[in-house]
Amino acid sequence: MYEHVTTLRVRYAETDQMDIVYYGNYAQYFEVGRAECIRELGYTYKLMEELGVRMPVVHMEAQFLRPAHYDDLITIKTMLKELPAKHEISFHHEVYNERKKLLTTGKVVLFFIDSKTGKRMPIPIYLKEKLAPFFTDQAL
Amino acid sequence: MYEHVTTLRVRYAETDQMDIVYYGNYAQYFEVGRAECIRELGYTYKLMEELGVRMPVVHMEAQFLRPAHYDDLITIKTMLKELPAKHEISFHHEVYNERKKLLTTGKVVLFFIDSKTGKRMPIPIYLKEKLAPFFTDQAL
Amino acid sequence: MYEHVTTLRVRYAETDQMDIVYYGNYAQYFEVGRAECIRELGYTYKLMEELGVRMPVVHMEAQFLRPAHYDDLITIKTMLKELPAKHEISFHHEVYNERKKLLTTGKVVLFFIDSKTGKRMPIPIYLKEKLAPFFTDQAL
Amino acid sequence: MYEHVTTLRVRYAETDQMDIVYYGNYAQYFEVGRAECIRELGYTYKLMEELGVRMPVVHMEAQFLRPAHYDDLITIKTMLKELPAKHEISFHHEVYNERKKLLTTGKVVLFFIDSKTGKRMPIPIYLKEKLAPFFTDQAL
Repeated sequence: MYEHVTTLRVRYAETDQMDIVYYGNYAQYFEVGRAECIRELGYTYKLMEELGVRMPVVHMEAQFLRPAHYDDLITIKTMLKELPAKHEISFHHEVYNERKKLLTTGKVVLFFIDSKTGKRMPIPIYLKEKLAPFFTDQAL
Repeated sequence: MYEHVTTLRVRYAETDQMDIVYYGNYAQYFEVGRAECIRELGYTYKLMEELGVRMPVVHMEAQFLRPAHYDDLITIKTMLKELPAKHEISFHHEVYNERKKLLTTGKVVLFFIDSKTGKRMPIPIYLKEKLAPFFTDQAL
Repeated sequence: MYEHVTTLRVRYAETDQMDIVYYGNYAQYFEVGRAECIRELGYTYKLMEELGVRMPVVHMEAQFLRPAHYDDLITIKTMLKELPAKHEISFHHEVYNERKKLLTTGKVVLFFIDSKTGKRMPIPIYLKEKLAPFFTDQAL
Repeated sequence: MYEHVTTLRVRYAETDQMDIVYYGNYAQYFEVGRAECIRELGYTYKLMEELGVRMPVVHMEAQFLRPAHYDDLITIKTMLKELPAKHEISFHHEVYNERKKLLTTGKVVLFFIDSKTGKRMPIPIYLKEKLAPFFTDQAL
């Protein structure tokens, strides 16, 4: 398993009149988690796009257990539970507040798409190589 | 089953640099679907809040089959597949573009919360009464 | 002067914990005003992009006089006070609630940019021709 | 003058199909600048609200000189050019990219409002005291 942790501060813009973070904004928090997770691998999603790979989201799900509030410094844990073998990758997320309470769990599935052809493609080799050491018990 | 259909125009703000609607924005589209669905019943979510009922989202999921684009006039179909019996309600959504292509399916589950106590409560009686005629085959 | 009026319903997502529309969301309301204003002329911004013209925003300003609230059906008045002569266009906006109270005034200035060269360009001739009849007292 | 600098990473959600940050999202960047500026003073906007002071935005303006792009690590400079004497406070902002290019300038004016009465009030004394040392040449 590959696991990454990042933090961010809840913006006023992200709250709604229920005095909590609007549920739709967790998609952005998950995005930040994914982006920083890839960056820590010595890579960036930005560079992937420049090299001709797009990653549209094809599925998301989230459980909202407890609310996040304005100015909370939340922790986003992002996990890859298996090495992507085909054309898709699944990120699992957990969001915590400063008191270590689990607020939200989620999962986002993205495809690897070749920008030129618009077709699905396998995980880019450079990304696979960076991830492989974390999945030595998984048949490659 | 109770079913409602509404339309909205995709804003430039809702696109991202993949030239499609950002996946996180469908949460807002589903919200519009829910709100208009309740309005058609002769009721509004705004009034519910004024009467002391909050409805936080506790679960959402979405499948992104095809992208929506800037200026698309999308159709949001919102379905209640069963009469809420306890403290939660599930809205099912389908989003279509103008060529009737199914873009996204989703489901959003919300709790009924008593604003004063902060506790879960059953579906408000006035909402249940408006919905009941659509579920005559369901044991009440 | 050319003037256009459109309406939209405030989304829950657009409110913040002050129970009003977050100030940053008016940029989207102004965008809707601009887009519908151009559409009424028998044209669309979408088509402009397809024909090779981009319109980045170079200036915006807004006065927030009264708040908009959740579920308000707001009216956005969009005004062109002069026929764009060079490479820029200024939209003036007024936002009203259902009781005809003026909530917000604003101004957004955009450039016309040739997508191929990335350079400023004059207002496209087809847009100018559609606007000209509304500015017969202005020297062309 | 009181000056504060903070940085943030541009999210994919904040871009639009022009491949740049949507102009409306700078309001959030300015908000982050304000919040961190106040935090550095040993105070938070969150605490202000808890102590009964709300700060609605009454005016904003922005000049968009150069675009910000996805994944840019932008710098937000926030400046108080004078000690707020009455019921309003003006924040001046400059946004830079990593190559120190000035992207955007802006100004946001907010009122101090007493949450109980809904009336304008002078700048809270604790905030004024924290700011005063930076404005020793200004008559208090």
